[in-house]
Amino acid sequence: MRWRAVVAVELKPGVLDPQGEAVREALRRMGHDHVSDVRVGKRIQLLLEAAEEGEARARVRDICESLLVNPVLERYAFDIEPEGER
Amino acid sequence: MRWRAVVAVELKPGVLDPQGEAVREALRRMGHDHVSDVRVGKRIQLLLEAAEEGEARARVRDICESLLVNPVLERYAFDIEPEGER
Repeated sequence: MRWRAVVAVELKPGVLDPQGEAVREALRRMGHDHVSDVRVGKRIQLLLEAAEEGEARARVRDICESLLVNPVLERYAFDIEPEGER
Repeated sequence: MRWRAVVAVELKPGVLDPQGEAVREALRRMGHDHVSDVRVGKRIQLLLEAAEEGEARARVRDICESLLVNPVLERYAFDIEPEGER
């Protein structure tokens, strides 16, 4: 069975985000001074095979912790659903 | 009133994603050959001031279309909520 996982990776609170700061400053220059904070992270969509949801979740967790996420600086969360549900 | 918006930016279907392909190939070499597709996008979190939700949504849409998203290659979606709700 095929699953679609969407992983959100973001910098931990307290970790400086120069890319987010650059976006915020660009927005300020464009007149968007109502924006007080910007944090830029990654959104990674995976299609994977697994017999059932528990196995799919375990695989995605393993992929996050072994490749996608730097646990010193980043944290992650993911949603998973059978492919084709939307 | 302060709002938290989370914007997901992804490449349009059909646009080549070399970064996603590199992740898929790295996973294959690590033994994760059950992963058939990877797409890498951005996840941008904004804090902004707006009097009510409609205004906040209009501001986020404007920010996406004027700075965050390249409409030739990318598409986006966002969720918005009053800050402090989680």
